[in-house]
Amino acid sequence: MAAMAVSTMANPNDKSGEKVLTMEQAVMGYNIIPRTQFTAWDATGCDYIYLKGSSLVAVNAQKLTETEVLSLAELNGVLNSNLKGFPNFSMCAEGKLSLMNNGRFVVIDLINKRVDKAISIPKGATDITYNAKRNGVAYVVGNNLYFNDGTEIAITNEKDKNIVSGTTVSRSEFGISNGIFWSPDGEKLAYYQKDESNVTNFPLLDITTRTGSLVEIKYPMNGMASEIVSLYVYDFKSGKSTKMNVTDFDKERYLTNITWAPESDKVYIQVLNRAQKEMHLNVYNAADGTFINTLFTDTESRFMEPIRSLYFLSNDSDKFIYTTNCRDGYKSLYLYGTDGKLIKRLTPVDADVEFVGYDGKRVYYTSAEVSPIDNHLFSVDIKSGKKSRLTKEPGWHKITFSADMNYFIDTYSSLNVPGVKQLVKNNGQVVKSITVCNNPLADYNVGEVTIGTVKSADGVYDNYYRLIKPIDFDSTKCYPVILYVYGGPHSQLVKNSWLAEIRYWEMYMAQHGYVVFVMDNRGTPNRGAEYERAIHKYCGQAEMADQIKGMEWLLSHSWCDRNRVGVHGWSYGGFMTISLITNYPDIFKVAVAGGPVIDWKWYEIMYGERYMETAKTNPDGFAKTSLINKAKDLKGKLLICQGAIDNVVVWEHSLSFIRECIKNNVQVDYFPYPCAEHNVMGKDRIHLMQKVTNYFEDYL
Amino acid sequence: MAAMAVSTMANPNDKSGEKVLTMEQAVMGYNIIPRTQFTAWDATGCDYIYLKGSSLVAVNAQKLTETEVLSLAELNGVLNSNLKGFPNFSMCAEGKLSLMNNGRFVVIDLINKRVDKAISIPKGATDITYNAKRNGVAYVVGNNLYFNDGTEIAITNEKDKNIVSGTTVSRSEFGISNGIFWSPDGEKLAYYQKDESNVTNFPLLDITTRTGSLVEIKYPMNGMASEIVSLYVYDFKSGKSTKMNVTDFDKERYLTNITWAPESDKVYIQVLNRAQKEMHLNVYNAADGTFINTLFTDTESRFMEPIRSLYFLSNDSDKFIYTTNCRDGYKSLYLYGTDGKLIKRLTPVDADVEFVGYDGKRVYYTSAEVSPIDNHLFSVDIKSGKKSRLTKEPGWHKITFSADMNYFIDTYSSLNVPGVKQLVKNNGQVVKSITVCNNPLADYNVGEVTIGTVKSADGVYDNYYRLIKPIDFDSTKCYPVILYVYGGPHSQLVKNSWLAEIRYWEMYMAQHGYVVFVMDNRGTPNRGAEYERAIHKYCGQAEMADQIKGMEWLLSHSWCDRNRVGVHGWSYGGFMTISLITNYPDIFKVAVAGGPVIDWKWYEIMYGERYMETAKTNPDGFAKTSLINKAKDLKGKLLICQGAIDNVVVWEHSLSFIRECIKNNVQVDYFPYPCAEHNVMGKDRIHLMQKVTNYFEDYL
Repeated sequence: MAAMAVSTMANPNDKSGEKVLTMEQAVMGYNIIPRTQFTAWDATGCDYIYLKGSSLVAVNAQKLTETEVLSLAELNGVLNSNLKGFPNFSMCAEGKLSLMNNGRFVVIDLINKRVDKAISIPKGATDITYNAKRNGVAYVVGNNLYFNDGTEIAITNEKDKNIVSGTTVSRSEFGISNGIFWSPDGEKLAYYQKDESNVTNFPLLDITTRTGSLVEIKYPMNGMASEIVSLYVYDFKSGKSTKMNVTDFDKERYLTNITWAPESDKVYIQVLNRAQKEMHLNVYNAADGTFINTLFTDTESRFMEPIRSLYFLSNDSDKFIYTTNCRDGYKSLYLYGTDGKLIKRLTPVDADVEFVGYDGKRVYYTSAEVSPIDNHLFSVDIKSGKKSRLTKEPGWHKITFSADMNYFIDTYSSLNVPGVKQLVKNNGQVVKSITVCNNPLADYNVGEVTIGTVKSADGVYDNYYRLIKPIDFDSTKCYPVILYVYGGPHSQLVKNSWLAEIRYWEMYMAQHGYVVFVMDNRGTPNRGAEYERAIHKYCGQAEMADQIKGMEWLLSHSWCDRNRVGVHGWSYGGFMTISLITNYPDIFKVAVAGGPVIDWKWYEIMYGERYMETAKTNPDGFAKTSLINKAKDLKGKLLICQGAIDNVVVWEHSLSFIRECIKNNVQVDYFPYPCAEHNVMGKDRIHLMQKVTNYFEDYL
Repeated sequence: MAAMAVSTMANPNDKSGEKVLTMEQAVMGYNIIPRTQFTAWDATGCDYIYLKGSSLVAVNAQKLTETEVLSLAELNGVLNSNLKGFPNFSMCAEGKLSLMNNGRFVVIDLINKRVDKAISIPKGATDITYNAKRNGVAYVVGNNLYFNDGTEIAITNEKDKNIVSGTTVSRSEFGISNGIFWSPDGEKLAYYQKDESNVTNFPLLDITTRTGSLVEIKYPMNGMASEIVSLYVYDFKSGKSTKMNVTDFDKERYLTNITWAPESDKVYIQVLNRAQKEMHLNVYNAADGTFINTLFTDTESRFMEPIRSLYFLSNDSDKFIYTTNCRDGYKSLYLYGTDGKLIKRLTPVDADVEFVGYDGKRVYYTSAEVSPIDNHLFSVDIKSGKKSRLTKEPGWHKITFSADMNYFIDTYSSLNVPGVKQLVKNNGQVVKSITVCNNPLADYNVGEVTIGTVKSADGVYDNYYRLIKPIDFDSTKCYPVILYVYGGPHSQLVKNSWLAEIRYWEMYMAQHGYVVFVMDNRGTPNRGAEYERAIHKYCGQAEMADQIKGMEWLLSHSWCDRNRVGVHGWSYGGFMTISLITNYPDIFKVAVAGGPVIDWKWYEIMYGERYMETAKTNPDGFAKTSLINKAKDLKGKLLICQGAIDNVVVWEHSLSFIRECIKNNVQVDYFPYPCAEHNVMGKDRIHLMQKVTNYFEDYL
């Protein structure tokens, strides 16, 4: 149970200020979040753009020359508008930016300072996707897909609202975030189509209309009928769409990680079975949809999650990079030939990696190989395998490369460093400092933040925690304790970044006399495949075991009041919160759970079946993890908060839980946010966090 | 502010017992509610039936002879069933009873002890209405009306679900409780038909299904489109339905208090305009639906509420009794000729009265003329006007007359008397005692219950209260106070009945050290028309003014802790509760409101427009009474409880209120009962009242 303190905040005892956070500040982050200079790379070369006063300025990374490219006055002249500040924009093509203005998608030529194209976008259009080659946009209105370069054409014209084209599918799992995929040559457009006819509706109540009204969503629920996904290719020459002839597995398969062949003639699909245990890397003829072949198959007895598209080498289009964690225990990059033959593992390290780019010789990737809480950039020579570490400062580095791959902008922070942004050459040589943030909490009395580790319950891993101590900490005193928990897949709460990724509410609570503890557990990412898959079929069990280890270590300190321990979490963290207070009533006295999963049978197919399978194949897992079965065991005080129009963890979860409490005459508290979806955002969140705080203040 | 103590509970200081109520007892009433013997009059004559052991026994009121009419064994033999106790039944014709058994409507001949008729009733049938002349039943399945005397015939066959026949209409206001009206001769059947096409839907969430599902209800909302009601007459001879040709006012008029002429040839309808300010007493030819004439018109500048059918004199069918409170300031009985000419006011007293029956010479009525909190039976000779009081014991008398009008059963209680049931001759002479209840609280330590009055805020009325003091009351101590409030129309909470109509939760709270106060205010019934109409266009305002007078009087006592005053109420009482804590934050510190009306614009047309008109005609009233405008003023602790499938005060009310609190960053608490409609019933109610209690215990 010994824990290693890795690091503490800089000058924790240097109480230079006496201010404390307001709840509004803690939630909205006003004036306390370090912010670095905005930058955006141009679509070609190595110029990056930033906002200097009210003008966009381009910096050439090589020459370090600065050129004004567009002033706000010029933008207003070009748009015939009266904007008070620069709106959001994208660098969409060489020397061009695009933005939405007055219902139009506008491309601005920065060289000639004029509108290059202005396209009227229909009201309610979503998924607006620009293609530079066609100088037009694809978008979705209702359930149909359109292209518009000045003249709108309907790519689909489906009257049945259950057939939806061009949007994300599979509830945006598997890295899917959109449904429009332009071919490299701009002559074709691949798009998802989902048939939701068999998916059950879930009713939501919209109270903002005069008489109240129904918003009905499609919600594919664990073990029930799912959406059926197809991939079509629209050919601008023929004006026709062709369906890719996927026949693998059952119809409720997943078509993931769509990748165009560089020649625009073929489409690669990572076809996954509904059970998420087998993946076929298939290639299809884009012209007629025929299946060409399966390059290879990956299988995994628990679950797999193909989440990265292929990357074809820019100078060798017969080779591509494939990302998987199904081979060597870690998410790794593999070089493949288009014949389906493995050439080599590019990243032979015992750490999860992420592909960043390729410069013709070297592959760039970030990884956890220095430490799971640090993120560093490496390059590896594709031929020699020679590896270089390109970021040196400890901390969590976020990397954006220039289009020509010669430079990158490195944005990082660490527990002690509020934030740094700098321009770096692709060999790691720092060229120019862009931002060095000051400590925005310099005037505040802040609790000491520590990062450390506690052994996981299975004794194999060091789980990282962050610990915030109350201000004016006195180790002879005894403080109430709050565990903030999420614990679910895809989350890493503890990083060697500014204040260890603190949520400022934790600091607020520390300023009100609480010890706050946050720890990543098995099931979370960036620690290898075994760590992630430890939760399979029994969500919450390994996670709780680890969290309890963390709490046992924490509560072994005399300055923690064992009789005043609370827990708070949202979504998966809400599930964890209720799991913890019902399974460990001797430890947790007060809990606040938000938008909690109560029984995985009510959660969505894509995410839920990956981790839990179905109640049919995994009855024991469903029974053990269902909080319906735990309602009767609730002893402490529990408040559940819920967005009333939550379309992720639908209202059936928490309402069913309190119904079960009522049945068992167990008292429980509840608060719905009537117009909030899964997360309570904006100003509502101030109210929420005040409510959470009051509950601990009243009852802990 | 002086108050008159009218009465206190018998032997309040005789603490014969030391037991206190459990919450379960307080809510469910186990072993603490006085219960009198069940009795039911036969359909003719003056025999009443009661259950003696497991046999039905008939008592002849005249001879006082007892005859066993049916034993449980005989019933089981007749039904070929194995019932363990007598099921619910009705005395449906001379010597016959009817009951539901095994999906059948069964008429049992008590003389011959055999099944007289057994009719299979389709699943889901409602509004089952027996007619003795046809020896068959009418009922509704789905939206259509049927008759069945062994063979089912469809009286309506409407495919459009928005057209509903045979059920109650107008949200069961105006005394409407059913939609089937048999003609006296059994040859015709009048029925309501409502067209709900224009009424908006309100969505409810059913969480009890596998994937959650929608229950959509029609909800006619204030100021919006309403249902359109028609009256049809079905003629069994022709097999045809004819619509009564009502053309008065706008189509969204109300057709109230349907009455058949004794000869079965005409139908009387009290046609009310949507504004509820004008009523036409119309008569129609039942054979062809033609309008014959309007007998008379009543108008009222604020609101009227025709709520009683006509009563035709059994021995003089050209005369009828009409009930209204639009003439002389009180609900009174008027004798009319069928020519529409007023003959006389039958009840010239300054008190609201209710018609009970007519014996050929005398009209029987109950009234508030002794005191508003007592209910007594009177008779008045229709010719001479000579009046007799027939019930002598103080208290609240409930009367059921024998079919021949020679006897009645009088069931009464008073503050001091748990319950008495007796057989009485129609001249008031007590013939036989049936039940005298013991005090079921004899073993309990109970708080003293007092009835008294406080002047209304306008100085005109004495408002009656009941006051429950804490057990072991010590006037030198200082106790927290809870106001329980309803306050809306049609409610009278304080009566001179057993413990003054106590809700046993009040006793529970008194046993936990609280003073509990309940008072009727202006707007409630049984005090004359002015008293009722004082709330017009400004619901809650006069009510609050009166309640505050009550609280001022109560809090003038040194044994009341002015700093610990709470308020609790449901529905209209929820509206009052939130109105009180937001308008009088200096008085009320803690409030629990259930199913509250928040803004009358969201309440139903029929009830709501009567008292509030519409936001268009009464903008000031809507603005002043809307609690949306008050959310920002909330200072104390407020918990709102809500049935999540409430189809009376729809969820839009309370969710909109908390949304407004959230907007204003005002803390408020909430708890939904997921499977409860407007009222939380059964075992759920134990949980609810425990929650209400905990809230006061935690925060008051």
